[in-house]
Amino acid sequence: MSLKPLILVTNDDGITAPGIRSLVEIMNSIGEVVVVAPDSPKSAMSHAITVNSTLHCSRIKIDSGPQKEYSCSGTPADCVKIAVNELLSRKPDICVSGINHGSNSSINVIYSGTMSAAIEAGIQGIPSLGFSLLDYKWSANFEPFTNYVKSITLNVLKNKISNNIILNVNMPRVNSNQEIKGVRICRQAKANWIEKFDKRKNPIGKEYYWLTGEFIDKDTKNDTDEWALKNNYISIVPVQFDFTAYDIIQELNTWDFE
Amino acid sequence: MSLKPLILVTNDDGITAPGIRSLVEIMNSIGEVVVVAPDSPKSAMSHAITVNSTLHCSRIKIDSGPQKEYSCSGTPADCVKIAVNELLSRKPDICVSGINHGSNSSINVIYSGTMSAAIEAGIQGIPSLGFSLLDYKWSANFEPFTNYVKSITLNVLKNKISNNIILNVNMPRVNSNQEIKGVRICRQAKANWIEKFDKRKNPIGKEYYWLTGEFIDKDTKNDTDEWALKNNYISIVPVQFDFTAYDIIQELNTWDFE
Repeated sequence: MSLKPLILVTNDDGITAPGIRSLVEIMNSIGEVVVVAPDSPKSAMSHAITVNSTLHCSRIKIDSGPQKEYSCSGTPADCVKIAVNELLSRKPDICVSGINHGSNSSINVIYSGTMSAAIEAGIQGIPSLGFSLLDYKWSANFEPFTNYVKSITLNVLKNKISNNIILNVNMPRVNSNQEIKGVRICRQAKANWIEKFDKRKNPIGKEYYWLTGEFIDKDTKNDTDEWALKNNYISIVPVQFDFTAYDIIQELNTWDFE
Repeated sequence: MSLKPLILVTNDDGITAPGIRSLVEIMNSIGEVVVVAPDSPKSAMSHAITVNSTLHCSRIKIDSGPQKEYSCSGTPADCVKIAVNELLSRKPDICVSGINHGSNSSINVIYSGTMSAAIEAGIQGIPSLGFSLLDYKWSANFEPFTNYVKSITLNVLKNKISNNIILNVNMPRVNSNQEIKGVRICRQAKANWIEKFDKRKNPIGKEYYWLTGEFIDKDTKNDTDEWALKNNYISIVPVQFDFTAYDIIQELNTWDFE
């Protein structure tokens, strides 16, 4: 067994995205890196898994780094499952997902393939975290965050975070690291999207839609991820996957179902 | 405005599945029903949404009931978004999703298209619930549950459940309603899947995989959904979509990121 930590790297933008290439480079300075990532963009795939069709994985070489890489036809959650249960020789010490091109703060965590991959690793008992930058562009500048991404990852490795906790790390859009005010531990803001469907007609006159929307954040408190990001902090929301609303169990027990 | 409640019905098995046909029939006895459901099976699609391609919706007629129906090319979460923001003339009073062919108890809630549709309705501020039967077969027998599905739905309408709570209702596999022991309010069992990948070769010798797995439930307490279902109760887990692990925020604040 290697003395270096075994690091599983994945994402949802696809294995060639600049965000994952930056993440791989940073992780190479920490441990032994294996990349298992989608062969094409799988944004907004959430925690979808492939149960009704087949999966393909290919060993590929993308750049000159020492990492081992597999390109996979599945979703981000599939990538983690097949990495852990089929491709890797041992359980990884940590899983990092991203760096996503675009925000996964607030309610976006639920739609995010990046975060679902990290959460899947959490379900598999692996310390894990997802990184996202608030810049959708392919040319997004990840460089100012290099030291923070490394430091946050090292903290997860060192501090033996409680089981079943995944970190959702979002990073503000800045031009240099001097604009970053630091790191804040936050809660998920109570914000959501108001969808607008852009209705069009195809060349033979049949209607179709594009999903578009506006992000509405009415949660004005200063302990949210949205607040932190607006104020140029890196936000970290600890995430868990027991969805039970414990507070309401007592109330539901008063209902009559007969 | 109709005096009857406006009920949005959706699912993930597709608009022609027996489970949704049963649910539509039951909902027709409660209110005005509009169905917006996927045009093909979308199991295990989780909370995926369609951002990189277009969506199509068609008015269709499937059976002789009074409900209005739309078949949609998108995911279950897409169906709810387009129903609420484009197709319906007013906000529905309730959204019901299912009846799913197969369990959505325990960790399955995170992979489930059925539950993600219900959760999406919750995000949109609509009281909502998902129904699932522990029988994957197309010929599954939904009949024993008719009165319970109706009673649980009427309870949600009557009791003005707190905002942002979605009910995850799972039903045991039984032959008659006399085998059902009743309803239990539960927490999500701490159980998970251990995946096994079935590796095969295609006709030209290239390897591919089928995702399979075994469900492992080591959570032996009697307040879980798994316990209830094993003992022939209908389980109801109240679900929420703030994923923040509040308990660990204080611990994370002691970490040093410099």
